[in-house]
Amino acid sequence: MECQDYGLTRNTERENLNLNPLQRGGVLPIEARKALYEFSDGYSVCDYCGGRLDEIAKPHIHGFLDDLAGFINTDHARTTHGAREGKFAVMHALCKPGDTIVVDGNAHYTTHVAAERCGLKMVEVPNEGEPEYKITPEGYREVLDDLSDRGEDVSLVLLTHVDGNYGNLTDARSIGKIAHDAGVPLLLNCAYSMGRLPIDAKAMNADFVVGSGHKSMAASGPIGVLGVSDEWADLVLRKSGRHAVKELEMLGCTSRGAPIATLMASLPHVAERVQQWDEEVEKTRGFVAKMEKIEGVTQVGVKPTEHDLVRFETPIFDKIAEKHPRRGFFLYEELKKRNIVGIKRGQTKWFKCSVYGFSQGQVDYIGDSFAEIVAEYEKLL
Amino acid sequence: MECQDYGLTRNTERENLNLNPLQRGGVLPIEARKALYEFSDGYSVCDYCGGRLDEIAKPHIHGFLDDLAGFINTDHARTTHGAREGKFAVMHALCKPGDTIVVDGNAHYTTHVAAERCGLKMVEVPNEGEPEYKITPEGYREVLDDLSDRGEDVSLVLLTHVDGNYGNLTDARSIGKIAHDAGVPLLLNCAYSMGRLPIDAKAMNADFVVGSGHKSMAASGPIGVLGVSDEWADLVLRKSGRHAVKELEMLGCTSRGAPIATLMASLPHVAERVQQWDEEVEKTRGFVAKMEKIEGVTQVGVKPTEHDLVRFETPIFDKIAEKHPRRGFFLYEELKKRNIVGIKRGQTKWFKCSVYGFSQGQVDYIGDSFAEIVAEYEKLL
Repeated sequence: MECQDYGLTRNTERENLNLNPLQRGGVLPIEARKALYEFSDGYSVCDYCGGRLDEIAKPHIHGFLDDLAGFINTDHARTTHGAREGKFAVMHALCKPGDTIVVDGNAHYTTHVAAERCGLKMVEVPNEGEPEYKITPEGYREVLDDLSDRGEDVSLVLLTHVDGNYGNLTDARSIGKIAHDAGVPLLLNCAYSMGRLPIDAKAMNADFVVGSGHKSMAASGPIGVLGVSDEWADLVLRKSGRHAVKELEMLGCTSRGAPIATLMASLPHVAERVQQWDEEVEKTRGFVAKMEKIEGVTQVGVKPTEHDLVRFETPIFDKIAEKHPRRGFFLYEELKKRNIVGIKRGQTKWFKCSVYGFSQGQVDYIGDSFAEIVAEYEKLL
Repeated sequence: MECQDYGLTRNTERENLNLNPLQRGGVLPIEARKALYEFSDGYSVCDYCGGRLDEIAKPHIHGFLDDLAGFINTDHARTTHGAREGKFAVMHALCKPGDTIVVDGNAHYTTHVAAERCGLKMVEVPNEGEPEYKITPEGYREVLDDLSDRGEDVSLVLLTHVDGNYGNLTDARSIGKIAHDAGVPLLLNCAYSMGRLPIDAKAMNADFVVGSGHKSMAASGPIGVLGVSDEWADLVLRKSGRHAVKELEMLGCTSRGAPIATLMASLPHVAERVQQWDEEVEKTRGFVAKMEKIEGVTQVGVKPTEHDLVRFETPIFDKIAEKHPRRGFFLYEELKKRNIVGIKRGQTKWFKCSVYGFSQGQVDYIGDSFAEIVAEYEKLL
């Protein structure tokens, strides 16, 4: 059989400054690269399995999960294949088809897809619209009150801790309190927060938290984290009637291979870096300030930003694109010349980006590069 | 935060001859190790995603899935996180809680767990008992006839192509025909066959096939393959109502990271090696013959074996263990001295093993080592 050429290289992204927010938190430290080498082959973490992934002692997955539970202050931690699989597991365990759940208007599409796969009805808490697109506790209270007035039971409240469109950090603690007052548990989607900033599930009144190893925890995908409180552990981690040790929602075992080894190897690094979160935010704010000096460039979402993912309206690049011989491709190409990637080819009206993990020198260089590109092509206007 | 030492090395398994059947088919060829290096970081395969993993052109996942569908002769191929996740997706798409499915008595525990997670009732086709533990088409016919007589609808027939206890290769084609005659689709679990021996889903009357990248396709786990026929594609690959391109049972995207890069890199190698399957079986039969020369050692399961996974009854090792100062640990330790691993510590009455992928010289050495250990300790009896 003749196979096609799959183009299995990634040097452009590996060797340049990649601004794609999706990629900034997933870069492996050296320890994780070593673990990947050790655990490359197949079912590599399963050599000494006695029947449960989360209880394996060699490598010490059991100890790792204890540390992980401590790291996010939850009672029980499991790895899943990603945040979406964690959300699905919680919804599937808690809800029946036709049940109602409440989600924020900035939720990731995977929240919708997980709910739809479970046959759930979603009621949305809208964001407050431009320019900040904020999700508020008041919004949750109104929606929950309204559903209660209509006598509609709610099985689950879901909140996106930091959304992927604006990088808005929400007030999880207050929203969790409101959910609990309504007698409903809170599932907090921490895909863009766990591993970047400190997470304390209990302090945030989160009964369930999900995180993403590949998005924000310096791990090879696909891997996620699911944290469950004692109160809900029997339900979400319920065991098979036939195979007494196997957890049903995990289908027995989840992360049977290399990604969990990278997540384990990265945990000390990640635990350390979340302590520097304030500096990351400061760095991002400085970057935003520099970008906003460019004519017409505006950060949308909560200001000043509280996260590294920032979204800019960039009409100036769009105007240049109209006149530039390379049209919309010019921005991507000009950035590429400067060893900057991660803004989609053809995108000029607006873009999302992140400078998470870059040095201040790199951040300055990136900001200067955008300004330089405008200076160079303004003459076309 | 202080993290424990997770013991993230695997040199014992990497540097010795590993007889664990679970590990033999998942060893990465050099091309896959290179791909792992390239795609180590986070969401590495998602740089150029337009919304659907299976349509990504860089790396060429789309072309790869076409090749993969051709490789197993199915209409549509997707990657999942493993065979179990593929089985769950099919069951979840096809069945409602309370539905009845028919499964073989040699099914992997993950078949039971996936069905239980979906709330399904399983009716088992028993194997024929010792010494071969065979699953037969007649058995399926009887069970399906019986259910039909009782007016019980069957939503799905599942067959384990090669089981993990005896390595029995089943007559999928005939069982698929029987299922179709009863108007029920067949899901074929190829975790121990796809990537080891040639798979032709259509010839085997399989509407769905699942495979395991980490078990049998020379890929880093967790990754699996799901093949779906045209007839069932609309249902199993149905899209979200809200996010038009997202496939619900895949939760949008599945393998967002390194494992799919290794599966892609390995496909040419795997496509080549399945052509040598007959030689692998011959090699295993030779190994069985050598093992059975040892007093009381018997291969159980279909004879002569048609697969590399073989199960031996080994009363002689158990008798030695009774007298040996190291008791049941002696076998593991004696093998380890000879650079052979993969038989569980303490196991002496029986064991499963595989010499898949070893050279004839290595296989001879392994067989000789078992004989040598018996010769050395027989005097204790």
